[in-house]
Amino acid sequence: MELVVQKFGGSSVGTPEKIAHVASRVAQSAAEGRSLVVVVSAMQGETDRLLGLAGAVAERPSPREVDQLLATGEQVSAALLAMALKERNISAWSMTGGQMKMRTDGSFSRARIVNLDRQAVENHLNAGHVVVATGFQGVDEEGNLNTLGRGGSDTSAVALAAALRADECEIYTDVEGVFTADPRICPDARKIDEISFDEMMEMASQGAKVLQIRSVELAMNHNVPLRVRSTFSDDPGTLVHSEDDTIEKLVVRGVSHNKDEVKMTLRQVQDQPGVAARVFSRLAEAQINVDVIVQNTSMAGLTDLSFTVGMTDRGRSEEILSNIAKEVNAEGFEVDDCIAKVSIVGVGMRAHAGVAAKMFEALHQAAVNIQMITTSEIKVTCVIEREQTETAVQALHEAFELAEPSAG
Amino acid sequence: MELVVQKFGGSSVGTPEKIAHVASRVAQSAAEGRSLVVVVSAMQGETDRLLGLAGAVAERPSPREVDQLLATGEQVSAALLAMALKERNISAWSMTGGQMKMRTDGSFSRARIVNLDRQAVENHLNAGHVVVATGFQGVDEEGNLNTLGRGGSDTSAVALAAALRADECEIYTDVEGVFTADPRICPDARKIDEISFDEMMEMASQGAKVLQIRSVELAMNHNVPLRVRSTFSDDPGTLVHSEDDTIEKLVVRGVSHNKDEVKMTLRQVQDQPGVAARVFSRLAEAQINVDVIVQNTSMAGLTDLSFTVGMTDRGRSEEILSNIAKEVNAEGFEVDDCIAKVSIVGVGMRAHAGVAAKMFEALHQAAVNIQMITTSEIKVTCVIEREQTETAVQALHEAFELAEPSAG
Repeated sequence: MELVVQKFGGSSVGTPEKIAHVASRVAQSAAEGRSLVVVVSAMQGETDRLLGLAGAVAERPSPREVDQLLATGEQVSAALLAMALKERNISAWSMTGGQMKMRTDGSFSRARIVNLDRQAVENHLNAGHVVVATGFQGVDEEGNLNTLGRGGSDTSAVALAAALRADECEIYTDVEGVFTADPRICPDARKIDEISFDEMMEMASQGAKVLQIRSVELAMNHNVPLRVRSTFSDDPGTLVHSEDDTIEKLVVRGVSHNKDEVKMTLRQVQDQPGVAARVFSRLAEAQINVDVIVQNTSMAGLTDLSFTVGMTDRGRSEEILSNIAKEVNAEGFEVDDCIAKVSIVGVGMRAHAGVAAKMFEALHQAAVNIQMITTSEIKVTCVIEREQTETAVQALHEAFELAEPSAG
Repeated sequence: MELVVQKFGGSSVGTPEKIAHVASRVAQSAAEGRSLVVVVSAMQGETDRLLGLAGAVAERPSPREVDQLLATGEQVSAALLAMALKERNISAWSMTGGQMKMRTDGSFSRARIVNLDRQAVENHLNAGHVVVATGFQGVDEEGNLNTLGRGGSDTSAVALAAALRADECEIYTDVEGVFTADPRICPDARKIDEISFDEMMEMASQGAKVLQIRSVELAMNHNVPLRVRSTFSDDPGTLVHSEDDTIEKLVVRGVSHNKDEVKMTLRQVQDQPGVAARVFSRLAEAQINVDVIVQNTSMAGLTDLSFTVGMTDRGRSEEILSNIAKEVNAEGFEVDDCIAKVSIVGVGMRAHAGVAAKMFEALHQAAVNIQMITTSEIKVTCVIEREQTETAVQALHEAFELAEPSAG
């Protein structure tokens, strides 16, 4: 029997009516003869409500207790969905992280899954139950509840699918799948039917926020086919799977963009060993993720070092940089908070020369100035002025003919 | 070190402000050098909110899933109280039913506690933690969450106190303790400092609703001294303990009353074996609790059989009685929903003649007509007209001089 893990996020289970809708969908899948594990997030707004209560009783709520608190959110939606399924004569069984023996590593609020004892879940699947599992949580060796951090429910679903050797992991969301570009910017953007894990990771990290990058990574490591699809339509969505399958190797699969970063530049520093290491190790210690890094060619022994960080890390990054600027005798540092990143992604570009050139030409034709460039095997990223984002995305979508089926 | 279990109900933890108040009280107890386990209920209104959600997704929500759902209520308040305690530099540790290994019997929504593995809680007490425990819940052999039913948190507290051999179990509530009569009826009612388990059970079952009768029974069986006291004052409250302690054996400890019952009478039935058995076994099958039962002396082979049932069971009782009336050829049956019960309770009455007579005389003087009478070793109960309840309670309180210290 085909085993499928289905994951429904907070907006899909946000109200009793929506839970009823999800129950109907799950009942339909069950009626098609599939064995099912359904992973749910907390009802939309519930996590914030609970954090509000925590903030009202403590200035710095204990991380352990925050996790004991937040884990109730998924327990509530799992129980409600199980009730709604039983109401439809589906024998359902809700299971918490503890009941599933989802073992996590003990780091509160950002735990990693260590392993899962398949037996507990399989016993219920073998008994003919639809298992409704709480996402976002696990239990550490001492029995403490741990939450997995933002997007953790996707990760829970993939971890379950991997442990149970499921045929597919379906991530239900409010979009129809992954698109060749943001449809709000490119009205002719096309839904992608299939995409490789590598491409999805590049798309996800660039702001195509349908899937958490952690869960794509996990699915890739365990070779679990992922399907992103809409809770509110019957479209099969986008299948994310490994490259060595039948997937067509397009030069450019899609265009992604991100407006949530700022650019920082350390001006006129000595071009000598150790400076970059000092900057980025200091930022890493502060848990700040650095994205694009560019160092210009040295002029008279002095160079400019630029990089981008998430907008929420701006304040802390500035503080660190202002200290370092003094230490390394830099001329100073600048912050540019009017930038955006645009990228083209595709596994086929490994075998094709001239893709980057075509991208730069398209941006040039659209009068978009390129501030920084980085490339990877399957991606080219340009940092540009933020207000030109839409122009740039549209130009690239057109240049690579992404609106046509099987374009590239 | 003295070990005390403290229990705070839903109204004591109903808002973040109230949780902060409870945290201050607990912090004070901890500062006095006591080892503490604090048992909490769900925040006031939370259980109803969750049941509302359940009702919105299912007409007859699955009992197992209702328990998975409701158990989150106590988990939330326990986590919040632990946070609030840590904020006051008390090292606190919340524990769910599962984490405490509170084993229950698997009956959803009205489980009984089977046993408790002391080790889990004791490890944390030994580590110097204040353990904040979820009331109202346990986990059965298969790992399912079970709730204990109404008043279950009191029972959880007593079970913890018994298993941990605590010196005392304090039940915090919104009244100062147990009174010689309802202070809303007798303004000169006095708080009782000490009362025996037996007396407390008779008072509780008669409507002095400060303690659930199940928890008093459990405390008596394990000889755990119980203290009922107010969350909002420093009064030591009422100590409920075993009779063979230093407790003073008063003839009458207090007056209790109950207005939530109706009287049913089966008229002119054959006074022959089996009729009463048939009536009460049929009611028992329907899970209807019968309280006072009186059968009048037979006249010409026919008799009247009267009893009281809770107001909420009225409809079902009438249905059953109307069938039985036909079966046993009774003249018919009557329902009187304008009755009340008043009782006097005291262990000393075992050794004193004339207590009942004094009660009847006091009611007579107050022009209160007695409809039914029953007696036990330590209690005399009269059924009277409901609108005379206040008059009767006041008359009895005065007749037995309960307003004076050590009266009776």
